[in-house]
Formats: sequence, C-alpha cells, structure tokens
Amino acid sequence: MVKKLALLGAGRIGKVHARAIAEDKRARLVAVADAFAEAAQAIADASGAEVKTIEQIEADASIDGVLICTPTNTHADLIERFVRAGKAVFCEKPIDLDVKRAEACAEVVRSVGGKVMLGFNRRFDPHFRAVRSAIDEGRIGKVEMVTITSRDPGAPPAEYIKVSGGIFRDMTIHDFDIARFMLGEEITSVMASASVLVDPKIGELGDFDSASIVLTTASGRQAIISNSRRATYGYDQRVEVHGSLGSVAAENQRPVSIEVANKDGYTRPPLHDFFMTRYTAAYAAEISSFLDYMEQDAAPSPSIEDGLIALKLADAALKSAREKVVVTL
Amino acid sequence: MVKKLALLGAGRIGKVHARAIAEDKRARLVAVADAFAEAAQAIADASGAEVKTIEQIEADASIDGVLICTPTNTHADLIERFVRAGKAVFCEKPIDLDVKRAEACAEVVRSVGGKVMLGFNRRFDPHFRAVRSAIDEGRIGKVEMVTITSRDPGAPPAEYIKVSGGIFRDMTIHDFDIARFMLGEEITSVMASASVLVDPKIGELGDFDSASIVLTTASGRQAIISNSRRATYGYDQRVEVHGSLGSVAAENQRPVSIEVANKDGYTRPPLHDFFMTRYTAAYAAEISSFLDYMEQDAAPSPSIEDGLIALKLADAALKSAREKVVVTL
Amino acid sequence: MVKKLALLGAGRIGKVHARAIAEDKRARLVAVADAFAEAAQAIADASGAEVKTIEQIEADASIDGVLICTPTNTHADLIERFVRAGKAVFCEKPIDLDVKRAEACAEVVRSVGGKVMLGFNRRFDPHFRAVRSAIDEGRIGKVEMVTITSRDPGAPPAEYIKVSGGIFRDMTIHDFDIARFMLGEEITSVMASASVLVDPKIGELGDFDSASIVLTTASGRQAIISNSRRATYGYDQRVEVHGSLGSVAAENQRPVSIEVANKDGYTRPPLHDFFMTRYTAAYAAEISSFLDYMEQDAAPSPSIEDGLIALKLADAALKSAREKVVVTL
Amino acid sequence: MVKKLALLGAGRIGKVHARAIAEDKRARLVAVADAFAEAAQAIADASGAEVKTIEQIEADASIDGVLICTPTNTHADLIERFVRAGKAVFCEKPIDLDVKRAEACAEVVRSVGGKVMLGFNRRFDPHFRAVRSAIDEGRIGKVEMVTITSRDPGAPPAEYIKVSGGIFRDMTIHDFDIARFMLGEEITSVMASASVLVDPKIGELGDFDSASIVLTTASGRQAIISNSRRATYGYDQRVEVHGSLGSVAAENQRPVSIEVANKDGYTRPPLHDFFMTRYTAAYAAEISSFLDYMEQDAAPSPSIEDGLIALKLADAALKSAREKVVVTL
Repeated sequence: MVKKLALLGAGRIGKVHARAIAEDKRARLVAVADAFAEAAQAIADASGAEVKTIEQIEADASIDGVLICTPTNTHADLIERFVRAGKAVFCEKPIDLDVKRAEACAEVVRSVGGKVMLGFNRRFDPHFRAVRSAIDEGRIGKVEMVTITSRDPGAPPAEYIKVSGGIFRDMTIHDFDIARFMLGEEITSVMASASVLVDPKIGELGDFDSASIVLTTASGRQAIISNSRRATYGYDQRVEVHGSLGSVAAENQRPVSIEVANKDGYTRPPLHDFFMTRYTAAYAAEISSFLDYMEQDAAPSPSIEDGLIALKLADAALKSAREKVVVTL
Repeated sequence: MVKKLALLGAGRIGKVHARAIAEDKRARLVAVADAFAEAAQAIADASGAEVKTIEQIEADASIDGVLICTPTNTHADLIERFVRAGKAVFCEKPIDLDVKRAEACAEVVRSVGGKVMLGFNRRFDPHFRAVRSAIDEGRIGKVEMVTITSRDPGAPPAEYIKVSGGIFRDMTIHDFDIARFMLGEEITSVMASASVLVDPKIGELGDFDSASIVLTTASGRQAIISNSRRATYGYDQRVEVHGSLGSVAAENQRPVSIEVANKDGYTRPPLHDFFMTRYTAAYAAEISSFLDYMEQDAAPSPSIEDGLIALKLADAALKSAREKVVVTL
Repeated sequence: MVKKLALLGAGRIGKVHARAIAEDKRARLVAVADAFAEAAQAIADASGAEVKTIEQIEADASIDGVLICTPTNTHADLIERFVRAGKAVFCEKPIDLDVKRAEACAEVVRSVGGKVMLGFNRRFDPHFRAVRSAIDEGRIGKVEMVTITSRDPGAPPAEYIKVSGGIFRDMTIHDFDIARFMLGEEITSVMASASVLVDPKIGELGDFDSASIVLTTASGRQAIISNSRRATYGYDQRVEVHGSLGSVAAENQRPVSIEVANKDGYTRPPLHDFFMTRYTAAYAAEISSFLDYMEQDAAPSPSIEDGLIALKLADAALKSAREKVVVTL
Repeated sequence: MVKKLALLGAGRIGKVHARAIAEDKRARLVAVADAFAEAAQAIADASGAEVKTIEQIEADASIDGVLICTPTNTHADLIERFVRAGKAVFCEKPIDLDVKRAEACAEVVRSVGGKVMLGFNRRFDPHFRAVRSAIDEGRIGKVEMVTITSRDPGAPPAEYIKVSGGIFRDMTIHDFDIARFMLGEEITSVMASASVLVDPKIGELGDFDSASIVLTTASGRQAIISNSRRATYGYDQRVEVHGSLGSVAAENQRPVSIEVANKDGYTRPPLHDFFMTRYTAAYAAEISSFLDYMEQDAAPSPSIEDGLIALKLADAALKSAREKVVVTL
C-alpha cells in the first residue's frame, strides 16, 4: 500500500524531501504545512499535495507519516504531538538544541511506543554506506581510527548562525553521527579545538567557524573530525576508516568528472556546491528507509537515541572548546 | 503546455525513456505500444499511460510526439509514418541497417518538413558534454586528436548479434557520432582493424567483437576508437580530446566511489554495469532536449543527418576491416 | 671545494645518508665510525671512506662536518663535542629524549656559535616542499587547518620501543615538525588521545601505538595528526593544508603506479614500504641543504631550535594523552 | 669485476647514460669520444673518464663495452666496428634509417657472434615493466588490445627533423617496440593516418607531427598508437593493455604530486618535461640490464632484431600514411 505522507515545513530541506517522495513509488505526499503559505503552495503544486494546517494533518487518519522540516525549536513539540497522533515521524536533526528537552521528547516517544526516525542523511549516502559495508564485510579488519573531513562551501548568514545552536550542534552533529556509525563503539571522551578563522561576525555571535575534534571510545578507537565553514572548492565531505587489516575511504563527489590538462597542469572541476546536490541519492535512500521502517518493526537507523547521543557529543565538544578541557562522557 | 508522448516499443531502452519522461515535468507519457502486450502493460502501469496500437497513436491528434524504440528494421517505416502524421519523432539509432533505406527515410523527413531527433544518448552525458564545452570555451585550443574507448561489459547473445547489423552499425555507431561531436569537422577517411577475440560464435555469425578504428578529417584531425565486446571491470566509456593548447578527458564512472587499501594495494569498485545505469543522466537530458526541440524551431542535435553519417561511417569501417583497405568518403 | 664528511653511526639511517652523500658532487664521505665494526666497514667499503674512531674524526682537521646517526642517548653529547671541535653538525632527531638535556645542548651550541642542522627529513620531500611552496605563493590564502596522516607500515620490535622515548618522541615528532612547517605560527596548545590498538606488547612497555593529536596556534589555526604503527597498505604519509582561498594536499607515493582493472575493481599497488624508499629524494635534498648551510651563513632549516620545540610538543602530547588534559604551552 | 665502458657520443642522451653508469657499482665509464671535444671533456670531467678517439677505444683491450650515442647515420658502422673489436655494444635506436643497411648490420653482428643490445629505454621503465609483469602473471588473461599514448611536449627544431628519418622512425619507433613488448605476438598489418597539425615547417620537410597507427597481429590482437609532437601539459607517456580477464594501465608520471583545490577546481602539476626526467629510472635499469647481458649469455632484450622489426614497422606506417593503404608485413 502506498504510504500517505505529510510535510511539515516547506523550506529548503522540505523541498528536498518532497522531491525524493515524488520519485518513490511506495509513497505519496498528500499534505504540506508551512507558516509561509506561498512556500507550502509551491511544493503542493509541484507534488500534487494539498496545503493543510498542522491541526488538519494531525486529525487526518489517512495520513500515515509526517516529515518534520520546520525550525529546530519546534521539532520536539511536533515529534511528541505526532507520535501521540499515531503517525510515523521522520524528523530533521537536531531533536532540540537543549539536551534536557530532547531527552524529555525521547521519553515521550518511548512511553507511547512512537515510531521516530532521525534525519541524519549521510548514513544513506551510497559512498558512506559502501564504506560501512566494507567494514561490515571485514575488509579492513577491526576499526581503529576514523577521519572525517566536513567543510561547508561557505558560512551561513548571521541570522542562521543565531538560531543554529552553534557549529557543533548545527554542523558537526552530522559528523558525530557518522563517526559513531563508523566506529561501531560508543564514544567516551571528547576534545575539541575551535576558533574563528572565516568570518569575525560568527565570533561576535559567540560561535566558531573552524573546529578540530577528537573522539575516543572505551577501547581506544579514535575519530578525528575537521570542520570549516569555508571550502572554496565546494562541499568537502570525506570519510576514511582505518582498521587492523586496511583502510577504506569515501572520496569527494563532483557533478562533472572531466580533467583538462594544459601548461598549468591537470584540472578537475570543483565539488558539488552543497548538500542538495551532493546528497541527492542519500535523500532518496533516506525516504526509502523511512518507508521500510513504517512497514516493519525493526529499529530505525538513525533512531531518536542516535539523535540524543549526537546532541550530547555536541555539548561535550562545546564545553571542551570553550573550557579547554577533555570531556569524559 | 505539457507535451503528450507515446512510446513505441516497450523493451529495455523503452523502459529507460519511460522513466526519464516520468521525471520530466514538461512531458507526460500517455500511450505505449508493443507487439508484446505484457511489456507494454508493465510500462503503462508504472507511468499512468495507456496501452494502444500504433494505429491508435497515429490517429490520436492529442499526442505531440513519439519515441521509436522498436526493433531496428521498423525504424525507417515508423519515422516516415509519424512525421507524416505530424508528430515530433525521437528515434533510437540506427535509422536502418541499410544506408539506402536510411537515405530514403531522411528524404521523406525533409520533404514533409518532419521533426526528427536521433537517439545518440552519449551527446547528453554530462561528462561528455563538459568535454565538448571545454572545447567550445577554447580551453584546449584547436582540436587535433580524439581518443574514444568504448567497451561493453560482455558480448550480447547470438540472437542479438544476428539482427544487430554487426559491431560497427550496432556499437561503434555511437562512437562515430561522438567522434564527430568532438572533432568539429567531417570525416574523410576510415580505417579499421577488426577481429574475433571474445567469442568465436560472434565470428561464426560473420561479425567481429574487437575493433580499432582510425578516422581522419580533411584537415588531418584524427580520431581513434577502441571497441571490445568484453570488459570485465564494467562499462568502459571514455573520451579524450587533444588540442593545440591542451587536452580534456571524461573519466569512467562508477556507482560507488570508495577505495579500500590493504596489503594487496588500493582497490576501487568496478564501473557501472551497463548503459542503463551509466547513462541515466544522459537519458534524462536527452528527453529534455527532445522537448526543447518540440517547443522550438532550432535544428535538432543529433539530427537524422547525423544518423545517416554515422551509418555511412559504419559501412566504411566494415569495408575497411573486411577488405583491408583505407576507405575514403 | 668538496666538503669532507664523517658519518657517526652505521645503522639503517646512516646507510641512507652515505648513499645520499655518494650521489652529491659537493661532498665526500671520508670517515665512518660505529661501535659495530662490520657495519662501519660495509659503508666504508661501499663509499670509499675509512673506518675511524670518534676521537680520530674529532681530531681530524680536514673533516668539515659530521652526521650523527648514532643511538638517541648519544646525540646531545656528540653535538656538543663536535660543535666544540668546530665542525658542522647534522644530527638525526631527536636531540635527546629529555627536554632539559636537549635545552642544555642547544645552549652549548649557541654559546660556541656552532653550526647544527636537525634531521627532520620530511621538510625536504619534494611533495611536501611543493605544498609549502603553494602556501608561500599564496595559492591557498591564509593557512587555517593542517591535516597530517602518518602511519608506519608496521610496529617496531619491543627493543626499539623501549629506547624510543615513546610514540610521540619517536614518530609524531616528525609530524609536529611538519605541522609547524605548514602552520606558519607557533603552537600554543596540544591535545592528544592515544591508545594501544595494534600490539599489546607496546602497551605493556607503557607506550601507545595509535594516536590522534590536535595542535592549536595563538590565532586559532589548527593541525590534526593521525598516527598509527600499522598500515597494511604501506607507509602512509599525507599532508593537507586548508586555507582561506583553497586547499593543497600531498598525495601518497608508490614505487610503481599501474592500475589493474578486473571483475573485482580497479587496483593500484601498495605504497612505498617505509622511509628509506619513500623519502629517497628527501634524503638527497637534505644532504644538499646541509652542504648549502655549511657554505653559507643563513639559518638552518630545520634548526636545533626546531628540534627543541618538536620535543616539547611531544612531551605536551604525552601529558595530554596520559592525564586527559589540554596542555597549554 | 667492474666493467669498463666507453661512451661514443657526448650529446644529450650520452650524458644520460654517463649519469646512469656513475650510479651503478658494476660499471665504470673510462673513455668518452665525441667530434665536439668540449662535450666529451665535460662528461669525462664529471665521471672521471678520459677523452679518447674512437680508434683508441677500439684498440683498448681493457674496455669491455661501448655505448653508441652518436648521430644515427653512424650507428650501423660503429656497431659493426665494435662487435668486430670484440666489445659488447649498446646502441641507441635506430640501427639505421635504412632497413637494408640495418639488415646488413644485423647480419654482421650474427656472423661474428657479436653482443648487441638496442636502446629502447621504455622497456625498462618500472611502470611499463609492471604492466608487462601483470600480463605475465596472468592478471588480465590473454592480451587482446593495446593502447599507447605517446606525445612529446614540443616539436623538435627543423635541423633535427631533417636527419630524424621522420616521425615514425624517430618517435613512433619506441611505441612500435612497446606495442610488441606488450602484444606478445608479431605484427602482421599496419595502418597509419598522419598529418601536420602542430608545425607547418614539419610538413614542408615532408614529415608529419600527428599520427594514429593501428597494428594487428596474426591472431587479431590490436595495438593503437596515438602520437603528437605537442603536449602542453608535459611528456605524455601512457600504456594500457586490455585482456580477456581485465586491463592494466601505466599512468602518467609527474615530478611532484600535489593537488591544489580552489574555486577553479582541483589542479595537479604538469607531467615530467621530457624523457631525461621521465625515464631516469628506466635509463638506470637499462644500463643494469646491459651489464647483466655482458655477464651472461642470455639473449638481450631488446635485441638488434627488435630494432630491425621496429624499423620495418616504421617503414610500413610511413607507406600506409602516404599511400593510404593498409600494409601487410
């Protein structure tokens, strides 16, 4: 049976999911809600859905699941509301900027037995998945060290920074999740160095734009994350995992892979410009995974617990960077 | 206005086009015809089209264009029939295995002022297009030499070989078109060496499975084509253009780009398994280009003339390989 | 005038330098000293030098310079002895395992105005130098972040570990120097996570075999170092520098660069097996630089001060890893 | 015993060999002859050899072997003279520009049982050798198709072109040899297209600067050669061999392998500037192989017969290009 889905939030990421749903035969987008009516209408028009209020969606028994793509400060409320309404919930990261609020939300989900999947899209990237598969197949032996390079093409505007929760909760949170996905063990200590090298305005807002983080697990496995809000050559997204028998790495992706050779050397074009193009396949696979989850009773990946842990790692990194201490979890 | 399209032929390549149409908002597949009813029904079901006969499609004034994906020996007849019916025609290569028949068909198209675009999908591959753009932007100066490597993962079955017209008309025909697309000048001489190295059955049918072809233009520009019906590592599709100021090359494509390093070295996965996955983006762009052509009066690329020339080059290559002569056009 | 050099220590690295001297027309190896007579004789035979005692070398006024390639615990004494003898000194890293002893040695060098160059060979690697040149030419703008991957093919024997001073003083010390070489600013804080993942015997000796280190400068520039005593695919030596206008990376090197493609994918051979082959060109350039230094009065690079700072960074990393604190310098 | 060698011809390639001999402990350069005294003296000075006349070298019984690096029109005479003098001969390609003269020379060598090795340096390149080893180890199965890309950085001066014997005898001759080295079967037919695209002066001298050649063996194996006298990005030297189980390719080589990424993309430096730097390791291995040959009685590779065959292929290619025919051998 085709699953009927509703989209809450018609912004940039909402559009990405609407497109992914349109290309999946197992789902149909039937409703879109957004405080900004025009944005909702645009997606509705493009996908054959109807513009509805959140209340209407909540009350509509024919709707099987919702995708929460609204501003972060509404995530926890909406998760609770829709698991109580009996709908499967897909929610963009993070659950909330506040760990306590996020924990309370997770408790509600547990208590009502709600179905919630978190939007860490990178787990679904075919290249990152292939890295994970190589690990699972034993091709590199026991995992020892993970290196994640994650750089945005450019810094977001000040308005975004203000509500983002800071670089660790907004940007590194994806890398924390990927680190855990690859390490195969829980992280027990965090150390982070962070500074303002890209844009002084980010510093004025109390945030950082450049960070290096080391995560360590109980058995001593280590993950390194290198973050910057600037990469002139495109969206830099690499993962490398080093193990007892070898290494496996996911290379950067570019829309066009040609190479021009001339007296100045050999030049390949820049990388994808940002996540919408870099992770197109990941978003499609993410929706597909959400539909699998709706149909089955297996645990979701990533789960709301994964969201909680990533958030705690972000808080630990912030504390480490600010107070210049190693934070033990 | 959304263009209404009909698909003639519901085989492998028909399915590819149906999928591309489904993802293009400017078009809608409304009818599918195939001698094998089940195949037509399957595509119709998946795309919301109806199964119709060729006669019904021909008579349906609401249908704007047709895609001819039927067996080769029906192409010329169907092109003539549908340009006479006033419909825009997209036809898979080749026009016909016989140059005379193809020329007569082209003459009909000209006389009725018909709109025909040929299905040389590789012109629409984003990587090959980027090579062409690099040339057009003057990045490599004046084109001098083109090298095309084009190898199928495996040999087709004998039944296919029998009706294929042979390696030059079936497989190299794409490379002839790409060579012309890159050379920017007409070819005036052809030499080919061909042999049976992959499968003796192909030789028993009078065909070849391995070929090396050199094309030369009036000003002395040269193109080399290397063809094989076997490539254990996937669908090998490369183009390199050498000019007075530099070179530009389109690299091979693989579905997943990871690299595993261990004591045996560094290993990346095989290439795409064949054209359906390798040229997904090309097929989408091809349909989009057909829609552009339907909407405008600009000359199509590739045109039926391009189809004719490629066919003549195939015949020349066959003569060269069989008679061990250099063929001047 | 050809410079006459003496080699103190005829072990693995001594042999490497003897070979480099043999290929440089500006120098001649005239004497070799080693407690193990056969080793000294072998190098002497191969290079046309004579076996001598340290005393003889010290007393020989015709000898212009010495290369100290003896065990670490003799370095400081020999440096002091030979600068006092008025000879130019090239000394393998580290100056000493003890910072105090190293500082005292540096003080002696300063007081007698001695000429000492430290053996951080990687500064002379043509690829790493090219990275530095790209920085100096402004191609990546202001340096922001450095990533160093440095993994040995395999763990050394326990006897070596015992006298090595531990992973930070023995192995990471090279990476500390390269980090400084690339950062262009002094490091003000160090944090390190270290564990035993490769060989439990290393742990029993109180050392680590896997480490992740983050270095930060006063202005907030960051360097990450990833170290392991195991890399099944060869000697993994990469540097990447990220700046305000772009990035520059030195790729890994392999003795043979072919690629085999088959049904299992595309495979390139492993990397160089260790430093003797990986850094052949670096060792030659290092000797050449030492000869330049002997002829001129410019400051050496790397200097004994560079050696001191690297040692202090090693101590800081060890403290950070053991005590789980961020160490401020 | 160290072999005493004499160098006939102190030009560019003579210097290359003198340097290779200097680094090989099994040989010593004892004499250098050249009509241009200063050139001979320069090499003699650098290598500790003496300047001698050809007559003196011929008469010196202590000299074990000679390297003929004189102008092409003296090769055959000198080969004959020195095999008659009982010396091992290493001769740069080609034996002569005239096949008849070359055959007569080969006959003299056979009749006196002379030791002659031809200077096809590329057989000794570690990357090309590794390609050949991969074939020999069965990693790509039965060889089917070879693709050789061989482009010089720039066209030589007119004076060189005049005495060069033309592009096929001067430049492609190396590729003919490598094609045979990889094909593992004798070539039975040749077709070539050649033109003047780089420098009209080359055309005025009756030569070509751009050529595409297809070679075919009796069993139908094919080799393609792409030649140009211009490659703005450096000395382009690639070989790819396609077989029944896979492919193997030797990649281009560059002196420095860094990559700079910025808003314009990812750029690696140009290739080596020409053969002296590209084939440094090959020249060393070539001398080593000549010394092996001097010490043993095994057949040389490449032999004078290999030189003869390459010359015949050059003549066949010239005939094919000029007369527009396929030439059967």
